[in-house]
Amino acid sequence: MKGKVYLVGAGPGDPDLLTRKAWRLIQAADVVLHDDLVSPDVLALALPYAQVLSVGKRCGRRTISQEEINWLMASYAQSGLMVVRLKGGDPEIFGRMGEEVEALQEAEIDFEIVPGVTAACAAAASAGIALTDRRLASELVFLTGHRASGEWPDRGWCGLSARGTVVVYMPGTHYEGLVKRLYEAGFSPQTPCLIVASASRPDEQKQLTTLEHLPQAWLKASPAVLIVGAVAGLGPRSAEELEEEACATVG
Amino acid sequence: MKGKVYLVGAGPGDPDLLTRKAWRLIQAADVVLHDDLVSPDVLALALPYAQVLSVGKRCGRRTISQEEINWLMASYAQSGLMVVRLKGGDPEIFGRMGEEVEALQEAEIDFEIVPGVTAACAAAASAGIALTDRRLASELVFLTGHRASGEWPDRGWCGLSARGTVVVYMPGTHYEGLVKRLYEAGFSPQTPCLIVASASRPDEQKQLTTLEHLPQAWLKASPAVLIVGAVAGLGPRSAEELEEEACATVG
Repeated sequence: MKGKVYLVGAGPGDPDLLTRKAWRLIQAADVVLHDDLVSPDVLALALPYAQVLSVGKRCGRRTISQEEINWLMASYAQSGLMVVRLKGGDPEIFGRMGEEVEALQEAEIDFEIVPGVTAACAAAASAGIALTDRRLASELVFLTGHRASGEWPDRGWCGLSARGTVVVYMPGTHYEGLVKRLYEAGFSPQTPCLIVASASRPDEQKQLTTLEHLPQAWLKASPAVLIVGAVAGLGPRSAEELEEEACATVG
Repeated sequence: MKGKVYLVGAGPGDPDLLTRKAWRLIQAADVVLHDDLVSPDVLALALPYAQVLSVGKRCGRRTISQEEINWLMASYAQSGLMVVRLKGGDPEIFGRMGEEVEALQEAEIDFEIVPGVTAACAAAASAGIALTDRRLASELVFLTGHRASGEWPDRGWCGLSARGTVVVYMPGTHYEGLVKRLYEAGFSPQTPCLIVASASRPDEQKQLTTLEHLPQAWLKASPAVLIVGAVAGLGPRSAEELEEEACATVG
């Protein structure tokens, strides 16, 4: 008897933002294979006797390969176990799920994808802004950063429109290359940029800045998303932020 | 005593894809103001004595204005009631939430945004494909259609990259204008296109076609999303689809 693999979105971190389906599956799984981004509060839902294994990749640390992850999923399922492959946010968006689905199809293992709340939506919700606002943004673009390297692809999104909102997942902290590309796409130096780290978690942090000041941002925590565009400036400002802006204007 | 407004994502339709937070808030609300896209199964969670009002907009039907929605939210909250403003999918994405947030801020009413699973993620999950696949798509673009008119903006997303995945929310059924714009952006006539109507609901339907055949698509149901790009062709094919493709090749 073959088991089944559920590729499940764990949402942004707050267990309350799990879907009911994800909640139920995590509580029923024999095996949970999770990314580094999945929060401990979510993993705590697993059964006491479930195998909970981190298969996450992290910058600069030797980790398990994609082939090993594929092999683990397939072999647990082939032993008849119920496997939850738990990914931060939504598995559809920058989660390397394509390769895992392909491996499961090749091994003829039954699988199901359970969508989740993606980090961009959680970050914007917590900032009190809409990612699209029909008065300001006619399109929404999701990109992913090359961590640590500061390199950005020469092609692909060179045609970004400055009328849209851009969300960069895992933007890293070396913003120079990104800023250059966004200037080329027509974004002005004054475009609001909002960095949100650990959206929905107790240690959530936000910094509002502009494209020209982005390379000097103090907020370096991860996981993070960067929201670029007019909508990013619409959230209610804290007294601290208003003071910082006043200082920046004076300085 | 002022009440509070929760701007809540109802997800794609399956109540199991509600977040736990949304589920709890709907079950506690005094007033639920919902869009047309919210499924009856989700609305059925409201308390028996809660006021459940549709404030949805629909093509060709006289409906409540945005100003009236803003006024309703504010006046219920000002009477001390707990208001859930329920939007299909995620409120961040093409939900006109920006205007509602602005109105609540102006009326100094306490509000909170609760993100949900957006339709694009649910549609792709149900099709068994990843919206981004690092081998095929380096960016993900969300657009929204002009229902019924068939008109597409002349500017804004003219720089779309054919290396990305494009998801069109509410694409309507007049695809000619959209196809023309995607050709201009460099997409080939053979680019796979997947239409998903009522993702995650019992009446879900899918059609896989190509950009050149999109205007002749048989699937006209709504609500729908259209997924354009190489990833759209990766899902497991049904026997029926394989037969259709064979016919198309012969014909």
